[in-house]
Amino acid sequence: MAHAQAMLDTYPRDFNVDARQLADTIETLIDCANTCTQCADACLSESNMAELGKCIRLNLDCADVCNTTSRVVSRQTEYDANVTLPLLEACIAACRSCGDECDRHGSHMEHCRICADQCRRCERTCKELLATMS
Amino acid sequence: MAHAQAMLDTYPRDFNVDARQLADTIETLIDCANTCTQCADACLSESNMAELGKCIRLNLDCADVCNTTSRVVSRQTEYDANVTLPLLEACIAACRSCGDECDRHGSHMEHCRICADQCRRCERTCKELLATMS
Amino acid sequence: MAHAQAMLDTYPRDFNVDARQLADTIETLIDCANTCTQCADACLSESNMAELGKCIRLNLDCADVCNTTSRVVSRQTEYDANVTLPLLEACIAACRSCGDECDRHGSHMEHCRICADQCRRCERTCKELLATMS
Amino acid sequence: MAHAQAMLDTYPRDFNVDARQLADTIETLIDCANTCTQCADACLSESNMAELGKCIRLNLDCADVCNTTSRVVSRQTEYDANVTLPLLEACIAACRSCGDECDRHGSHMEHCRICADQCRRCERTCKELLATMS
Repeated sequence: MAHAQAMLDTYPRDFNVDARQLADTIETLIDCANTCTQCADACLSESNMAELGKCIRLNLDCADVCNTTSRVVSRQTEYDANVTLPLLEACIAACRSCGDECDRHGSHMEHCRICADQCRRCERTCKELLATMS
Repeated sequence: MAHAQAMLDTYPRDFNVDARQLADTIETLIDCANTCTQCADACLSESNMAELGKCIRLNLDCADVCNTTSRVVSRQTEYDANVTLPLLEACIAACRSCGDECDRHGSHMEHCRICADQCRRCERTCKELLATMS
Repeated sequence: MAHAQAMLDTYPRDFNVDARQLADTIETLIDCANTCTQCADACLSESNMAELGKCIRLNLDCADVCNTTSRVVSRQTEYDANVTLPLLEACIAACRSCGDECDRHGSHMEHCRICADQCRRCERTCKELLATMS
Repeated sequence: MAHAQAMLDTYPRDFNVDARQLADTIETLIDCANTCTQCADACLSESNMAELGKCIRLNLDCADVCNTTSRVVSRQTEYDANVTLPLLEACIAACRSCGDECDRHGSHMEHCRICADQCRRCERTCKELLATMS
């Protein structure tokens, strides 16, 4: 249903990463960004919200970093490895921290369990793209 | 594959919009935001880029507005109709302007054709949510 | 110190809003966006955080809406009133809701007092730009 | 006029970076983000826009990365060096690439000259914060 791959197929120049891998990464990033936005909000509605400050904060960071990374990775015009590679590193780190924190709450809050899974998946996907691009 | 619905199902309070409609809107918004980011970038790589200033500008606006709308709509805690309804109106307007402009180039640039379709779909989806919420 | 005015002075085409008013609006919007980001975070660190869910949520919304509005208003290329005017309306509404909520806590939390002031100022500034542009 | 310092002064917990340095960094980041947004738009309105694809692309990246970095750095609750430090690295890299590219056009386009200066200043400010935090 998402259109990242269809849009990459119409790009008027060549690009040297595999389009399927790139589209998967973009879609994983925007899904992870939104999952973190929803997890922050669900935490805000929990009765034990006062214990979830760290989780909310890392959700907000991870949502912002994944969103920006999805935009930078989506841009193919005049690709600059100097910009993309350190940003993928930062995104991997944000997903790891957020995934670790959500994991601590995953057994009793389902939104944190799903969010942790999504952060792990996004971390792995970004690592694979980084390995391909490096 | 996207997790908007699964996350809404874990939300710890009630909310009075249908979860399926809300999840569809969120997923359409984030897909439209990313499609517009990719369309702006594809336009930047076209040989006739100099004629595409208006299209790029509207793509950038629509990407930003859809992205922000997806975040606000994703938040259920202490829902405030005063914030959400005018933002949906602004998003409908951004999708309409961007869709109209992309339509003008859709016959000779496939990324604009796909982007126009996606903007129309997002405009329609936001209108339906606005009607439900009003 | 901010460069919105200096940048507008270098814009290669004419634009029909007063540059001073436009620059003031842009700077007010980005200051309000950041103030709301900081207020949400300060609320997350308060000992009575559990009572601040509504405030945090509106801070996050207002930060996102002001940020997107600052970007759209900063773009002069092929100005489209259909996009800008409803977004200013949505921004005015987000500032009003966030300002009202922060005001309720302003007497005992200084970050909410400053944030309420900044939301009021941003609401007023956006209303003035909307009046000029309509 | 900007409120980053005033807001940090109201933060309800301690934080171990100097508030003045942190506020300067936040304000520099949000000013740089907006300057890049305006530079991308000014480039889109230049008669030689077709030669500015790389500049526009890097402006868009730098605007997104600086904006996200300003948000993450603004958050003090449960500070996580693992998230902040690599993001500062990515921001330094984005500012360097964008500053280098804008510098190439600075002699004949004043918006690129101002933007290059601002990117250099932001790169330097982020490096100083990174050195303090490491």
